[in-house]
Amino acid sequence: MESMNKRFAIKDAFFSPLEEKIRTVVLPYQEAVLKDEVEGVAKSHAVENFRAAAEVLKKGKCDTEFYGMVFQDSDVAKWLEAAAYSLQLTPDAELEEHCDRMIAIVAAAQHEDGYLNTYFTVKEPGRRWTDLSECHEIYCAGHMIEAAVAYADATGKTKLLDVMCRFADHIYNHFITEGNPGFPGHEEIELALLRLYRKTGEERYKELSAHFLNARGDAGAYFQKESRERGWYLWGKDPAAPEYNQTHLPVREQKDAVGHAVRAVYLYTGMADLAAETGDESLKQACRNLYESITRKRMYLTGGIGSAYEGEAFTEDYHLPNESAYAETCAAVGFCFFLRQMLRLEKKGEYADTMERALYNGVLGGMQLDGKRFFYVNPLEAIPGVSGVAAPLKHALPERPGWFACACCPPNVARLIGSVAEYAYSVEDGALYQHLYLGGTIDMEQEFGGKITVECDYPKTGHILYTFSPTTEKVMDVRLAIRIPSYAKKTTILRNGSPYVPNLDDGYAYIEGKFRAGDTLILDIDMSARRVYANQHVAADTGKIAFLRGPLVYCAEGTDNDGDVLGLRVSRTAPIREIEGGAPDGMPMLTVSGSRITTGEELYSFDAPEKEPVSLRLIPYYTWGNRGLSEMRVWIPKE
Amino acid sequence: MESMNKRFAIKDAFFSPLEEKIRTVVLPYQEAVLKDEVEGVAKSHAVENFRAAAEVLKKGKCDTEFYGMVFQDSDVAKWLEAAAYSLQLTPDAELEEHCDRMIAIVAAAQHEDGYLNTYFTVKEPGRRWTDLSECHEIYCAGHMIEAAVAYADATGKTKLLDVMCRFADHIYNHFITEGNPGFPGHEEIELALLRLYRKTGEERYKELSAHFLNARGDAGAYFQKESRERGWYLWGKDPAAPEYNQTHLPVREQKDAVGHAVRAVYLYTGMADLAAETGDESLKQACRNLYESITRKRMYLTGGIGSAYEGEAFTEDYHLPNESAYAETCAAVGFCFFLRQMLRLEKKGEYADTMERALYNGVLGGMQLDGKRFFYVNPLEAIPGVSGVAAPLKHALPERPGWFACACCPPNVARLIGSVAEYAYSVEDGALYQHLYLGGTIDMEQEFGGKITVECDYPKTGHILYTFSPTTEKVMDVRLAIRIPSYAKKTTILRNGSPYVPNLDDGYAYIEGKFRAGDTLILDIDMSARRVYANQHVAADTGKIAFLRGPLVYCAEGTDNDGDVLGLRVSRTAPIREIEGGAPDGMPMLTVSGSRITTGEELYSFDAPEKEPVSLRLIPYYTWGNRGLSEMRVWIPKE
Repeated sequence: MESMNKRFAIKDAFFSPLEEKIRTVVLPYQEAVLKDEVEGVAKSHAVENFRAAAEVLKKGKCDTEFYGMVFQDSDVAKWLEAAAYSLQLTPDAELEEHCDRMIAIVAAAQHEDGYLNTYFTVKEPGRRWTDLSECHEIYCAGHMIEAAVAYADATGKTKLLDVMCRFADHIYNHFITEGNPGFPGHEEIELALLRLYRKTGEERYKELSAHFLNARGDAGAYFQKESRERGWYLWGKDPAAPEYNQTHLPVREQKDAVGHAVRAVYLYTGMADLAAETGDESLKQACRNLYESITRKRMYLTGGIGSAYEGEAFTEDYHLPNESAYAETCAAVGFCFFLRQMLRLEKKGEYADTMERALYNGVLGGMQLDGKRFFYVNPLEAIPGVSGVAAPLKHALPERPGWFACACCPPNVARLIGSVAEYAYSVEDGALYQHLYLGGTIDMEQEFGGKITVECDYPKTGHILYTFSPTTEKVMDVRLAIRIPSYAKKTTILRNGSPYVPNLDDGYAYIEGKFRAGDTLILDIDMSARRVYANQHVAADTGKIAFLRGPLVYCAEGTDNDGDVLGLRVSRTAPIREIEGGAPDGMPMLTVSGSRITTGEELYSFDAPEKEPVSLRLIPYYTWGNRGLSEMRVWIPKE
Repeated sequence: MESMNKRFAIKDAFFSPLEEKIRTVVLPYQEAVLKDEVEGVAKSHAVENFRAAAEVLKKGKCDTEFYGMVFQDSDVAKWLEAAAYSLQLTPDAELEEHCDRMIAIVAAAQHEDGYLNTYFTVKEPGRRWTDLSECHEIYCAGHMIEAAVAYADATGKTKLLDVMCRFADHIYNHFITEGNPGFPGHEEIELALLRLYRKTGEERYKELSAHFLNARGDAGAYFQKESRERGWYLWGKDPAAPEYNQTHLPVREQKDAVGHAVRAVYLYTGMADLAAETGDESLKQACRNLYESITRKRMYLTGGIGSAYEGEAFTEDYHLPNESAYAETCAAVGFCFFLRQMLRLEKKGEYADTMERALYNGVLGGMQLDGKRFFYVNPLEAIPGVSGVAAPLKHALPERPGWFACACCPPNVARLIGSVAEYAYSVEDGALYQHLYLGGTIDMEQEFGGKITVECDYPKTGHILYTFSPTTEKVMDVRLAIRIPSYAKKTTILRNGSPYVPNLDDGYAYIEGKFRAGDTLILDIDMSARRVYANQHVAADTGKIAFLRGPLVYCAEGTDNDGDVLGLRVSRTAPIREIEGGAPDGMPMLTVSGSRITTGEELYSFDAPEKEPVSLRLIPYYTWGNRGLSEMRVWIPKE
């Protein structure tokens, strides 16, 4: 599994500006927050915690208290990882210097024996590894390992990588060499260790990842025992139900996606990654089962997952309430991680279709178009005065607030966008796979003897142009596998202007052949907007219709609909038209005829509401909430 | 405000069997639970708490611990009150003896100074009146006062009345004579003191009620101060938000129904009762405003109130989710209390219409038809496998469980049903008002010189027959005011078989005249079922239709609809037919044509669902959940 970021020069109408926003807005803002330099924002103290830990190591004590969540360290890790991707795409000496300084601060907090965690160093020395259930030591290690690998990839500098290898060695010694029991309450390190294994070639990291995955599934026994024995408690004496952190069953026996959604998809990512590395069939099958549980029964149309605020968790099959959806941005990010690994296991277009849906809706909806504000929670319906206010909807804000006290989502979005090429392309078995339509130039010198340039204005249009630039030889020996999206009624391929019939297999078009300089391929995807219907068992969506255009879920916002969305009813059959550039960021707006109902003032009436014909105006879901408070609905009752 | 229970001999096809069930099933079962004699049911200990308190008084200590909720005493009070109504309707020497014994147990727990509360006597001696916010001392006093008045009314025995007068005097001394600050965190005594005032004629009880009502509205200042000063805590140091227990504004300035719904309607009942006693115009207006807040913006079609599990509370205007509705049975009971008092303030048919809706749906839906199980929470949609299971719906059970640890609802239903005549009729200004259609004989000797017998099979039919039986004179001088229900398209009155045109005023038909023996009046209410539409701002009901037949809200249950309710879509215009006796308890079933949609297995699809025509079958909401687990829906998407 080779890094695409290295060999891919992105030049994409959609993602390049996003990456630029990450580089110029999100990363500097996040760095300032981590350093407590932003006025009027909840104190992060994340960097201060590392400084305090270093002081403890030097002097045996420090004047500063630990402050923040027990997993505050991971905010620094995710920022570093996102910064690393940005540096890989756009070298920036100043940012790199900031990163180096940040890494020095992190490194100074590492103990002689390799241990690194500011909460335990500053606040609970001597209590290491005694609350694996909730204290996130291993989780934070996982994120910092990811940052270390990404930063080494980006800059070639290995200081953080060395630090994290030492910590990984320390963890290995504790859990494997010394044979101490336990596994992390919040999964993450499983996938991180596999990245570290690929970066360093060190088999023990893969072994440790497998160890943690295989140790899981004791029905909560270890966390119960741990809780009884430790005699101190961060968050209540009784550990959460085993489903919450997916310890209810051994991973190979898990069939339903349950519990905390971010934990779940981080776990499944690790499982799928390990299965890809080892070929473990039972693990593969478990991944397929969990994928099916999510996508057949527990996923919002937006690719958002986790129906409940309570436990930020999956609930039950077909329980997908719109206004109270949790659908945490981080869970959609983690879902993309999982789907990318599923694509390593088998090339099924469906995995990429789902990944694309989650990315363009569940993930991007989390970020304000200006990159300055973020949703943690992504409801599919919002009503000002009720959403974010009524007791059961306090979590479901109708507008993106600023930085969060628990600031996991913004850097998670940043690191996904910064490494989007890794999700769009992969080189496997001598073929270039295209999973997402991302413009740029791919260096395929080694495999094909040249470069391929992809030009597109996706998802505004479905027109994808591939041009070939052989270098050493006159022709390139190309093996391309291009995903054919399931949302398109029709997709055509032209080779040098002439219709081309590829081999189609499970959602991918396989194109093999020799291409000369200037040869072209054109993929033309029918992007016509379509009506979508939910399964009959989804109570929240009965009698309602949603709209997709390409990968984009659309929604009605009051701003475009005379301030009233709840009164809108949509035609079942009327044609869906597009207004070019009508959406807040220049994407097409959709219009479709329907009606607006008006009732009297009474709460209930025997009189049927009055109806007047209207043209509904819809914008992409990821652009909602960018123009002030307004009603919003993805699922619209039909006329 | 005279008691109707005394002069009304009920003989009603609908309520008489319910009262019989209360007498033969509910009361004995509840008594056994209160005495901890029922196996497999959470221990109540309510009677034991009184015994323990008596022992403390006698010996200065006791071997038994207090057990249960801080308001456990009120379960005994509500049982006694319900038993009193039953005795009034149906004398029963054995039940009366049980009551006398129960009263002796209660009386023995009273302190020399009149104080009576088992929690403080047994568990927190010396801490009386230090946690008015949550410790429910005054609340429990209120319920026991109500029981005392009812029992004296029923039996003429005043032992409990004397006990409670002494306690009321004690409370008067503490808060008025001694001038100690404070008012109850859970309202109830306000309305109870007014009943005690009417029973005893003692002005001080009215004064104390007014004192508590007027003391309210300090924006939480008193409870904050109390919390800071007491240094011990039952339920957390910070008192709830002032809205939770309606202390956010002085009562006369309250406009929106907020906070804990039971507390709210108990408060409003006290306010309206006091306004009726005193003629206080500003208090009347506040009651009207609060009534409008509930009925125009915050009430379920069933008359259920309280949209949120969190705080068992009202939320925001038009936020009326169906599957997660709280709509506590006790809140619907309390709402009936409030509406009865509103009818004292002014004779508006609307108040009685709403009371009827709440009674037949929000209250009766709380009880299993066999009287053996109860809903605390009354959702308007239930889905087995999701309702009661998914995290945000854990409270919204799809089947009535047995007795609750917090057992407030069953005795509350029992005391409302046992005193239903009080809600159905009132004698005011020399007229007999009929608010609900309840069969039986009313002794109007004093006012009209005879009896009136009302015969009906309501709400099965809308045919109400009144016959007149003059006693001393040959004719009765009658002044009747009969509510004309707003749900009926047409209501006709016949006098001795001939059309009669009454004076109609604000929902009441006023009939004055001389009636001889054997003279009749017939009220004929058109009971045709009708479609109901919710206000356009109710997000949960958009695109949906509900059905009312008379006062009864109907619902679709899977049991009658091939096991599938979510797939049902109902015709907007097709006639609604009735199947006589088709509902579980012999009420009419409704049928209406529509369709059933079927989707594929996919969670989301571009294919419109398949439709087949079906006849939907609907049963009264209060009868749902009586035939095993099944989907249920009140609001049905239209075709």
